[in-house]
Parts: sequence; structure tokens; C-alpha cells
Amino acid sequence: MPDLAERLVELCGARGVRRGEAVKALDPGFHKDNLSADLAVFPETTAMVAAVVALCRSEGVAIVPQGGRTGIAGGAATAPRSLILSLSRMQRILTLDPLARTALVEAGVTLGALQQAAAAHALVPGIDIGARDSATIGGMISTNAGGSEAFRYGTMRQRVLGLEAVLPDGTVLSDLTQVAKANEGYDVKQLLIGAEGTLGIVTRAVLRLSGSPANRVSALAACPSAAAALAALDRLQRRPGLALIAAEAMWRDHLVVTAKSNGLDALASFAEAPLYILFEAGGDDEDAVRAAFETALADAVEANEIVDVVIAANLAQRTDLWRLREDWAVDRAFPGGLWFDISVPLAALDATVAAMTRRVAAHDPRHRVFIIGHLADGNLHVTVNAPSPIRDVYDEVAPLIYTGLKEIGGSFSAEHGIGLEKRAALQRYGDPGKLALMRQIKHLLDPDGLMNPGKVLLP
Amino acid sequence: MPDLAERLVELCGARGVRRGEAVKALDPGFHKDNLSADLAVFPETTAMVAAVVALCRSEGVAIVPQGGRTGIAGGAATAPRSLILSLSRMQRILTLDPLARTALVEAGVTLGALQQAAAAHALVPGIDIGARDSATIGGMISTNAGGSEAFRYGTMRQRVLGLEAVLPDGTVLSDLTQVAKANEGYDVKQLLIGAEGTLGIVTRAVLRLSGSPANRVSALAACPSAAAALAALDRLQRRPGLALIAAEAMWRDHLVVTAKSNGLDALASFAEAPLYILFEAGGDDEDAVRAAFETALADAVEANEIVDVVIAANLAQRTDLWRLREDWAVDRAFPGGLWFDISVPLAALDATVAAMTRRVAAHDPRHRVFIIGHLADGNLHVTVNAPSPIRDVYDEVAPLIYTGLKEIGGSFSAEHGIGLEKRAALQRYGDPGKLALMRQIKHLLDPDGLMNPGKVLLP
Repeated sequence: MPDLAERLVELCGARGVRRGEAVKALDPGFHKDNLSADLAVFPETTAMVAAVVALCRSEGVAIVPQGGRTGIAGGAATAPRSLILSLSRMQRILTLDPLARTALVEAGVTLGALQQAAAAHALVPGIDIGARDSATIGGMISTNAGGSEAFRYGTMRQRVLGLEAVLPDGTVLSDLTQVAKANEGYDVKQLLIGAEGTLGIVTRAVLRLSGSPANRVSALAACPSAAAALAALDRLQRRPGLALIAAEAMWRDHLVVTAKSNGLDALASFAEAPLYILFEAGGDDEDAVRAAFETALADAVEANEIVDVVIAANLAQRTDLWRLREDWAVDRAFPGGLWFDISVPLAALDATVAAMTRRVAAHDPRHRVFIIGHLADGNLHVTVNAPSPIRDVYDEVAPLIYTGLKEIGGSFSAEHGIGLEKRAALQRYGDPGKLALMRQIKHLLDPDGLMNPGKVLLP
Repeated sequence: MPDLAERLVELCGARGVRRGEAVKALDPGFHKDNLSADLAVFPETTAMVAAVVALCRSEGVAIVPQGGRTGIAGGAATAPRSLILSLSRMQRILTLDPLARTALVEAGVTLGALQQAAAAHALVPGIDIGARDSATIGGMISTNAGGSEAFRYGTMRQRVLGLEAVLPDGTVLSDLTQVAKANEGYDVKQLLIGAEGTLGIVTRAVLRLSGSPANRVSALAACPSAAAALAALDRLQRRPGLALIAAEAMWRDHLVVTAKSNGLDALASFAEAPLYILFEAGGDDEDAVRAAFETALADAVEANEIVDVVIAANLAQRTDLWRLREDWAVDRAFPGGLWFDISVPLAALDATVAAMTRRVAAHDPRHRVFIIGHLADGNLHVTVNAPSPIRDVYDEVAPLIYTGLKEIGGSFSAEHGIGLEKRAALQRYGDPGKLALMRQIKHLLDPDGLMNPGKVLLP
């Protein structure tokens, strides 16, 4: 009897299968165990995916679906005897209708490729993340990706009109609706969105596209508090003629380390404040946007919502501002730190940051808290660092960050997913009724537990 | 042993229970069987709802949750021995945070009440429907309501951040997140959204609010085709300084009947065209919006996207334009007609309308097709009418409307729900894999089949 690899070659062709060292030659992405499996298959069609899933089910082989491997919570991590099912050969943009503002794409299309195709029609997918050139649409659906534009266009869940997925039993769930309104009973495709591949494999999707302003202007505002920053945000959102595209937050420690690491010291010292917001506004006429933006920012300074502000005068300055937000200088300076990804109701931002920082300092005075985030979503990316790596104290530190979030309507898991890393937190902070339902649904769809096993729910 | 009504009085108080004729004295809403039950309970808290559900489960009593009873597909219809569970005494707006742009409300709050509370902060719930003063948030969540602003703000599913519901076993699913990004495993609350009360009873929700332009200008545009109207729509959506709020479509027969019935003959004859679009644009400065709107509409006329256009000069004229769209003159002129509610991919609008009209005419030349809808969603409300009532030929006519929609990514059920009326259509046009999953999920959550029985899925 042929071994699994040979049968996969029968299904997907010799080019569609990699073993052993050829698996390790792939880009490992952002988690150390992404390529621990010995075998990987690269189907080219939904039918091939379904055939592979059916084969694996009959053979009792665990499948780990992989997109761009840019997740950092371990959702794509593999064990040696599991099979990687990569969507990387399904990367066609099948249709893009600029008037209907929809695109039908295969799951392996990268966000960057879709952004490029949409830009030809002055449209955007409405999601933007740093890993845009590696992250795939299928992976972003499976993690319900958010990013910097979510406050304006929604998270991935809001961008998905239609979805096709191969379920753990090898059947195809086909709901490739092209329309915004389709109420045909329970919207079961929503279960697949954010399930991190544990309930099936997303193979194709219909995405909503949105109009995009032709020009963008960025500004860095120093704010006396998150409450003040929110007042400025509200002001900018309400300003006629401005489309606010980003409101990225950086608390001061992050700004200082990142600015210095990038030779941008002037941006670390233009104004002393606890936090800084990178506002970006868009419009079709650059001069008009700039004028409206400048006026609104000046009004915010006048109202003490902003201490001082630097407006990028050109593309080079705009790139510098974004580097402050996106560069990983803090991680280079403090390797081996702990990453957290939380959501905080906006009214509680200042109090939450203060309490969290106090708890960490009380726990270990050598620990430092760095915070960046997406202001309008209350989504904070918190890193806890120390002079030497502290990965081994994750379980001690996590409660210092998560305590009290659930009670105020926040979340210990904003946009990076549960994967392996946050399973214990989900068990601890999740609603018991919801957790019970999740387990029942997992058992219903995947009774053998072969679809991305061990992820999201603790065994 | 006390009877059910007495035990309900123990749980919810004497004011919280109605029997017999006191039930019939309620507003029946839009379906003839909404008040066929002999008993109704009006809990005031989530705990009361849970207690009633637990009691009914132990007694084997079927529950029909009711909001504003404005659904037209029979989702709230009752049988004599079932219990109406009305959310009408849960109508508090618990919090409304204007900076965070969120509101926590009880399920019985009407859309109109929330609109009014939000308007005090120049915000909107982002959903608007004609039945705004009766329809409740819980009912709108349970049907995933859409309406005229969905193309801009999304349907109800996109407006719900957090949800609390009593499940059929009497447990409470609590997911009252206040934030836009919360990925904590399978988003099971999505199952409740659009389930029409068959999987549980929505008791509270956190809704997203959005900024609202202070001023609105409306225009009626006569268009040579839907394709041309879509080009005009795209032009208006891209116009700097304009926020497009509505693009409501009326095919000519609807316009003529409704205009004449309302003494607005001039609006029926200002330009001869197959369809008319009621565009509405908003902005903070009325003069600026009007100027931008006029210029864009003139450009659209120049480009032959619009044949001719009437711009409302004042509130009275604006009200007249909306009356053309919202008045039910066609139903008064042709009582006993058939209503359909479909979604069509935008590129297929002209061909679909033509083919559908042809099929109906070929079936019975006495039948007339009237069409209105939401252009940007491809959502058409189609009525088929004849000189005398034709309700008895629904099963013959429905396939003439629905044929081919699924294949092109449209839907036979856009925003009015399945209820009783479209169960056969769902069985016929629904994806078999999805239908199987729906039945499994229904059985998982409601094994006794007591929660709004007989709705959505055929027994």
C-alpha cells in the first residue's frame, strides 16, 4: 500500500507535495514550529483540498492549514507527524468588480496582491496589516484580522460577503454570495471566520472592497492622555472633507526607543507626553485634505486634546512617522519579551494602562511595559520586557495584563488569535456557556479532532 | 399544581403576563398569526427570560420570542398553545458612550428610541428601516436587518459588537464585549444573529454607532438602466465632500402608481426612464453638500448615467421624494399581491430584472411586477400583483423570481428573513452542506425543538 506522500502526489501532483528537508526549506514565518511537520501538500483547487481532507480523515492524519505563516500565536504550528496543507498555490484573484466593489479570490492570495489589484480601481480591501505581503486572505479570514483601518472599514469578518470552505469531513461548504444582504438561515460561515482552521479550511472568499482616498496626510500628535486623544479623534472623524484612515497609538517608551533606533531623535523629543497618536487623513485633493487636517489639529491643540503636533510635509516624513509605529526596535532592544494583544473599552484606556503598568512594576521592578495600538478600537499591543529574556514567566505576567478586562467588556485576545498561546487564557476568561458551545461545535464538525488539532481549545 | 400562567406570574409578576383576550389586544403587527397564542409573558430582566425559558423547557411549552412584530415572513407567528415571550418591557438604553461610539441596550428598545438617543450626539445606529418606531433591536438582530443605509454602515450583523442571549436550555450566553476587536475562539453569537429566535432569545446587545452628517440633500434621478445608475452611484460615492447616505431604486411602474396615488404626478412624468434612483447625500454644511451634489449629478447627466434629475429644494420636497419610495400605494392598489425580497449581484441587475419580468408575463399576462430596492446592495423588493388577489399562486410564482439567483451569487432572501414563508425556498435553493449543518446546530442547541418551532427550517 502506498504511503501517504505517494497518495498525496496522486491527488495533487509531484509539484504539490514536499517532504522532509524540502518542507524545512519553506519560509518558516513567525512561529518556531510552523515547519515541524515532515510533509506538506499544496493543492491547486478546492476539489483537491477536499480530496486531501477526505484522505487524511480516512487515514487518521492531522492537518494544519497554513496561509502566510505570519500569525504569532501559534495557530499554524505543526507537530512532526501532522500534514501541512498550504494554500499557497491557490492564489488567483478570480473576479474583481469595481462597480459592485467585490472580489472573488482564492484563499492563498496575499493581502498585498489584492491591495494592488484593487488599487487599480482606487479601491482597497479595507484591511491593512504590517505583514501584508505574506499574509493570505484565507489566513486573515481564519484569524479575523483587524489592523490599522478596522475602525473605519471593520475587521475581516465585516469584509467577507461569501465563503467557501472544506469541512473536516471533506465536504464543501459553499456560500459564495456576492451580495451584502443574504439571510438564508443560520450564517454558519461565520463559525469558520476566526476559527483558525480548526473547523475547516477556507478555500475561496468574496470580499467587499471600499473606496480609497487618493491622497493621505500623516501627523504625529502628542497627547496628555488617551481620553484627550479620543476627543481629538472624535474631532477629526467629524471634520467635513476629511476621511480619517488611521489613529495609531504609541505610548512614550515605545516612541523613544523606536525613534532613537531609527535615527529619528527629533521625533522623540518634540513634545513630552504620555502618548502619541499617528493620525492619517485621506482625501482626493491633497491640498484640501492638508488644510482641513491642519485646521482640525490646531483646534485640538487649542482644546488641549493635543499638546503639540508634527505634520509630515512629504512622503519621506510620512514614512518616518510610520516607521515609529511599525518598526520592531523594542523587540530588537529587548529580545525574549512577552507579547500581549488586548482590547480595552475606550473610556477605560487611561485607567487600564495605568493599572496594568503598576501591576507589572509591582511584580518585578526590572520589567518594562511598552504599548502601541489602534486607538479607535482600544486595541493595545503590549510587550513586557526585561534586560534578559523572560519568556519563561509568561504565565505569571499574563494575568497582570488580563485582569479586569472581561468585566469591563474588553478582551484578552484582540486580533492575533488564540492559537496555542492563549488557550489557557481563553479557558480562564471565556464565558463558560460560550466555551461549552465551542466544544460542542468542534465535536460536531470534527469528531475525530484532525483539523488543526490542539489549537484554540485546550485538549 | 398551578397552571403555566400562574407560574409565569410568580416569575414575572401579574403585570408581566397576559392571557386570552388581553393577548389579542396587543398590536398584532404585520402577520396575521402573531397573536394566535393564548398566553404572553413580558419579562423585565435577562434573569426573568432565563427563568421563563427553563420553566417552558421543563413543561414542554413552545416559546415564540417577539420584538416589534414588524416582520413580514412570519418569524413571530404563533400557534394557540405556544407562549409569546415579548421583550417589550426590556427597553432601557443602559449606556451610550459618544466617544467610543457604542450603546448597550436591552432587546426591546425600538430602533427609533435608539436613533433619538444617538442623535443627541450627532450619531446614528447605522441602520434605518421604515418600521423604525416599532421594530426592536432584538428583533432586528434576530433578522439581521438591513434597510436603506446598509451599503454604507453594514447590516445589523456588522453593527453588533456584543450580545447576550438566553439559549433554549435556559442558560445565558454572555458576550457583551464593548470593543471592535475580540477574537476569543468561535464567534458563536453570530449564530444568533439572523436566526429569527430559533436558537435563543436575544436579551441585550452592544451596538456600534456612527457619525452622522448634520444635513441631507435628496434627489430623484431617472436612469436609462441599472448599469448606468451604478456608474452614477460610483461617481457620487467618490465625490469629495459628499457622504452618500441612500441610493434607493424604484422601477417605473412603482413610481407612476405611487406618485399618482400621492398627488405627485409631476414626479411621475419629469423624465421617462425604466428606473429612478432616490439619492441622498449628507454633509455638515448644507450649502457645500448641495453644491457638490449638484455638480456630481450634472456630471452624471453629462455622462448619460442619468437622463434627468430633480433635486429637493427643501424639506417638503425631500419628504415627497421619500414618500415615493416608502408609501405602500402599490399594495393599496393591488391587495393580495405576492412579495419577494431578493439580492442580485450588481452587474446582473438589468438582466435579472428583464428575465424575471419576462418569466412572470409568460406565466400569466395579467400579472404585473413592481420593483423597488436598495441599489448599492442589489437588494430588490419585488411584488407581483394582479387585478384580484393572487396569494394562492405563491408557490407557482416564487420560482419565476428566484430562478438563477443562487448560481450568480445572489439570494432569494435578502433582509426580511425566512420565517414561515421562505422555508421551502431555503430547502430548495440552500447549499445542502449548509442546510445539514443548520439542522445539526438547531438540534445541538434546541434538542426539544421548543424555541420558535417551525420557523426557518421545515420540520
